[in-house]
Amino acid sequence: MQANVNPNNSPVPVPAPGRPKVLIIGCGFGGLEAARALKDAAVDITLIDRANHHLFQPLLYQVATAGLAAPSISAPIRNLFRNQPNVTVLLAEAVGIDVAARSVALADGTALPYDHLIVAAGAGHGYFGNDGWAAYAPGLKTLDDAFRIRRRVLLAFEAAEREPDPVARKALLTFVVIGAGPTGVEMAGTLSEIAQHTLPGEFRHIDPSSAQVLLVEGGPRVLATFPENLSEKARLQLVHLGVDVRLKTRVTNIDREGLNVDAGEGGSYRIPSRCMVWAAGVAASPLARLLGEATGTPIDRAGRIAVASDLSLPGHPEISVIGDMAAARSHVPGQEPKPVPGVSPGAKQMGRAAAANLLRRLGGRPTEDFRYADYGNLATVGRRAAVVDLAAPWGPLRFSGTGAWLFWLFAHIYFLIGFRNRIGVLFDWATAYFHFQRPARIVTGVQHPAPGGRGPKN
Amino acid sequence: MQANVNPNNSPVPVPAPGRPKVLIIGCGFGGLEAARALKDAAVDITLIDRANHHLFQPLLYQVATAGLAAPSISAPIRNLFRNQPNVTVLLAEAVGIDVAARSVALADGTALPYDHLIVAAGAGHGYFGNDGWAAYAPGLKTLDDAFRIRRRVLLAFEAAEREPDPVARKALLTFVVIGAGPTGVEMAGTLSEIAQHTLPGEFRHIDPSSAQVLLVEGGPRVLATFPENLSEKARLQLVHLGVDVRLKTRVTNIDREGLNVDAGEGGSYRIPSRCMVWAAGVAASPLARLLGEATGTPIDRAGRIAVASDLSLPGHPEISVIGDMAAARSHVPGQEPKPVPGVSPGAKQMGRAAAANLLRRLGGRPTEDFRYADYGNLATVGRRAAVVDLAAPWGPLRFSGTGAWLFWLFAHIYFLIGFRNRIGVLFDWATAYFHFQRPARIVTGVQHPAPGGRGPKN
Repeated sequence: MQANVNPNNSPVPVPAPGRPKVLIIGCGFGGLEAARALKDAAVDITLIDRANHHLFQPLLYQVATAGLAAPSISAPIRNLFRNQPNVTVLLAEAVGIDVAARSVALADGTALPYDHLIVAAGAGHGYFGNDGWAAYAPGLKTLDDAFRIRRRVLLAFEAAEREPDPVARKALLTFVVIGAGPTGVEMAGTLSEIAQHTLPGEFRHIDPSSAQVLLVEGGPRVLATFPENLSEKARLQLVHLGVDVRLKTRVTNIDREGLNVDAGEGGSYRIPSRCMVWAAGVAASPLARLLGEATGTPIDRAGRIAVASDLSLPGHPEISVIGDMAAARSHVPGQEPKPVPGVSPGAKQMGRAAAANLLRRLGGRPTEDFRYADYGNLATVGRRAAVVDLAAPWGPLRFSGTGAWLFWLFAHIYFLIGFRNRIGVLFDWATAYFHFQRPARIVTGVQHPAPGGRGPKN
Repeated sequence: MQANVNPNNSPVPVPAPGRPKVLIIGCGFGGLEAARALKDAAVDITLIDRANHHLFQPLLYQVATAGLAAPSISAPIRNLFRNQPNVTVLLAEAVGIDVAARSVALADGTALPYDHLIVAAGAGHGYFGNDGWAAYAPGLKTLDDAFRIRRRVLLAFEAAEREPDPVARKALLTFVVIGAGPTGVEMAGTLSEIAQHTLPGEFRHIDPSSAQVLLVEGGPRVLATFPENLSEKARLQLVHLGVDVRLKTRVTNIDREGLNVDAGEGGSYRIPSRCMVWAAGVAASPLARLLGEATGTPIDRAGRIAVASDLSLPGHPEISVIGDMAAARSHVPGQEPKPVPGVSPGAKQMGRAAAANLLRRLGGRPTEDFRYADYGNLATVGRRAAVVDLAAPWGPLRFSGTGAWLFWLFAHIYFLIGFRNRIGVLFDWATAYFHFQRPARIVTGVQHPAPGGRGPKN
């Protein structure tokens, strides 16, 4: 706030001189935890984010598939820090970092100076250089992405109901999810449930359960970060739910009418589809590349920056980079450092570690290496279908099926921010479970084709 | 469905020839009731709407003011008619009606023939010929409208937090609602509650409770359709909630930076504001004017068509026009016909009456005049503030304050469609009441100012 408030006009006191200015970019899991961990520190924190809400991203696919309303998985950032007076929240977009001048440039042209900077700007979609595919196969990172996918899915069924040509109708009723990581598996399983259980009986000219849901994955198995037997369990669960899982099948092109794939020995072929979802790759915020170029720090293929063992930017102890932007490694004494997986516990732990190191620096103590505590991994596939891979201290323990699904469900409810959201989500899920209904099946922002211009309201 | 399904391709049986084709345009309160009332009729109903959901419009202002999530007041139309096999739902926009050929033109160029037509396309905003004002003072009729207003309100506080200039900051913190009908009163009361109770404590450079909420009304009182003493009670409740009510104040111009008003003896002056909401006028769907021109039927100032006493279009007994599109009158034997108020019970009763008359015509019986059963009128102002004007058989009974507010609350919960929504809304309201929180305080679709082009994600 230092740059754009005129002290003569400011209705609140200007921060006391001498308190270190901490700037945090991004309020995902990492930035949120970092700011919270500095609750009692004698610092002035400015937390900026492009959105006004923290998003519980692990459940975003449920907004995209009409299972949850957006407010159920979103919490206004200001409200989260209402009782933490050392935090100032700004709705703003960071577009540059001047590491020499110690200042962050915002999209509106103002600059925010900092003494300490925590960069937690996350990741967007990565199309491996084929950015043109984004228009036809949107990814899922923000609420706007989720609304776009929800709209496409629901409108595909609507268009199919009115489509007389059987070939065009089949393309409208073919849903393709690209990438079989956790998000892709969840999307495919849920889309199949919608087609098989939610919509049948509501259409008069199509049978929604005739819709095909394809899960296309370049690698040899689904959920590649899980043990091989759990991957196979998840694949069988998907097949049981009606998903057509196509492994070792690489996407070579995507256009408005479908996609081309190369299945190796299975040959190359075309899949006509009018609704495709991208869940195949992420790319770190461009801020990572800017920092890399400014400091000569390597960037990996996913656009992440190689941080030091204490999560700082090499040569810049005043800057930490955390979460999906950081190619961070976990340091256990006596062991080879291991990459930190791109999951929410990783981002949260990095947030707390960066805050702790910042406090150590302020106290004149040496920083500590980051060590990732791995409690395991879990992913849901669909109705009463999930896989769980628990690490110590509760494991090693691997299980799948209904028990894993219940475990997943309560773990996610537990970690949801805000009491209200937890109850609301539980209620929506109970409705969905017992009635097969999707409470958020609404479409907004529809543009009707209008050859004669904008027509009247109906 | 008759026009655009090729029987050879259609996956379901073509309707039996000879069953009358009933086409209903619009699934608001009127269209929904009409279709439901024809549940057991031997007709084939096609119900078209521009949206995929029925909207419980009386609570739309709560979506606009972040109190409710959109799915809480919306129900997928298909789902509502899942168990009514004589209804085919189409997501489509009607742009024309050929009364001679008995066919409705859709925006995509197809035409739907009908034997009986019920036009229930509702109303949009009316700017009294100043359509340019719509960009600066949006109205509230659809979910997209509500999202737009929610975004503007929340972003105004965000921008104020970053605005160093006190004059500009004051304009950002001045909210103007134009029109003091039920929607305007609800909006103004709720905006004031947000400023006074929800947001304070969350900002560091502004005091949200310093925000001004103005309710500007050209007439001499608020809630003009209520008895005069209740209007005055509502005005006092608004003032108590912190709303600056300006009666006999006519808007003469609206631009990006504020509005000009003419207060008669109070003179003409300017109100700088960056967030204005239009609740002053409605205009019937343009389909009303098309029907009027095609048949020589008069259109009133609000664009509504003068229907016959049985709600049919004069000279076209096969067409009924109902709800906000119809300048309908209530016929009580021995009394002068009275205009039907533009409220949801009116639309619902017209829907049932049009369906009943359709069945009478099919049975070769004469149609009956429409008679509006007036059970009274209620409007909420804000927290524990409402006015109720009950008619027979429970009245006449007039009351205001907490009791009226509770009455309003349970009446609206009762009429909300869908069990889930009722529970969810009750829960959200309880949260809002006890914690002053607004559960849907999320902003989507934000465009950040970016002088240097689109910046990186943060």
